[in-house]
Amino acid sequence: MRPSGAADWSFPSPVTRLPQPVSRNLALWTASRKLFTVPRMTRILGIDPGSRATGYGIVDADGPAVAHVASGVIRPAGASLPRRVAAIFRALGEVVAEHAPEEAAVEAVFVHRNAEAALKLGQARGAALCALLEAGLEVAEYNPREVKLALVGNGAAAKAQVQHMVRTLLALERAPEADAADALALAICHHHTRATLARLPAGARRGRRRGRGWR
Amino acid sequence: MRPSGAADWSFPSPVTRLPQPVSRNLALWTASRKLFTVPRMTRILGIDPGSRATGYGIVDADGPAVAHVASGVIRPAGASLPRRVAAIFRALGEVVAEHAPEEAAVEAVFVHRNAEAALKLGQARGAALCALLEAGLEVAEYNPREVKLALVGNGAAAKAQVQHMVRTLLALERAPEADAADALALAICHHHTRATLARLPAGARRGRRRGRGWR
Repeated sequence: MRPSGAADWSFPSPVTRLPQPVSRNLALWTASRKLFTVPRMTRILGIDPGSRATGYGIVDADGPAVAHVASGVIRPAGASLPRRVAAIFRALGEVVAEHAPEEAAVEAVFVHRNAEAALKLGQARGAALCALLEAGLEVAEYNPREVKLALVGNGAAAKAQVQHMVRTLLALERAPEADAADALALAICHHHTRATLARLPAGARRGRRRGRGWR
Repeated sequence: MRPSGAADWSFPSPVTRLPQPVSRNLALWTASRKLFTVPRMTRILGIDPGSRATGYGIVDADGPAVAHVASGVIRPAGASLPRRVAAIFRALGEVVAEHAPEEAAVEAVFVHRNAEAALKLGQARGAALCALLEAGLEVAEYNPREVKLALVGNGAAAKAQVQHMVRTLLALERAPEADAADALALAICHHHTRATLARLPAGARRGRRRGRGWR
């Protein structure tokens, strides 16, 4: 009997130990790497809501690598705002069903000076939030300044700079439409923030999440 | 052959005309009354959206009679706005599933001077619209002035007057909570407007619907 708590460091007996094929050892090594060291691939959906145009962008993030999955702009048909709002809800539901993202990021409320525009934006945002939370997704929020800071390194960067960085990071042939680019930027910003959070100790992480508008 | 366009006013021949039992004549008369004159009973859901408190009220309207079915205030739990917005969506979905209203009326956007409040209200309103339109309901919109005019006869009536009229019209033992009363007032206003529209000729009706914010 071994003393309890001590590991069995004895070399396996050449008689009982059967030779393992290299491929199985490799598979085990890869699996353990995936489980314990390499952050597994995460599919992130970014949303830039608007009553006339709602941008969405999906990326697959795997460690430092970020790959473009899909992006586009939802332009809801229908003359009336209620119909447009419902169309955004339905279209985003379809996007989520098709691409099955695991996490979501939505542009945080940018305080408008115009109350009427804020009301319209609010309704589009409400529809987007309903679609995401109904699909069981956690929703993180980032304001435009945070997104610009994460992508360009300057919180006051111009829209064109963000579009350029999105295009470069995702190795796209041409820059996506403005609203889709903003949505992709949100998804990338969320990935960067997650990666930073994962490296922080647990206490700091919780505080930081609250500070960053994690809900 | 009769000249075209002239109605056949000749008295039916007593030979070919068979005697009809009174009960059948009565049944036919009742059916025709139901089809052409008496509006059938309609269940109407009124919603007064808000991010902290969303009022709802359901009435059964049958001609001039309006009966209270259910009313209440949804106070979404959860500290964050996205969670509250999703909670409104879910709660309204349950109200619709339980009471199966046929028509819905939502308080029209009251232009706020405060953009931040407008953004929050907009998100709550977006969630409410999604819940209603997802359930296949048509949504009519009335602004507070129209509701007050329909209930009290004065577009600038005080909130207490509206609450009093709601209580009187629905023969309630006590006045409902402010947000629930507003929602019930919306449902009653919608019923009055529908009844007026039904009495107008088709051309005027269409114009009026557009003017009143029918969507």
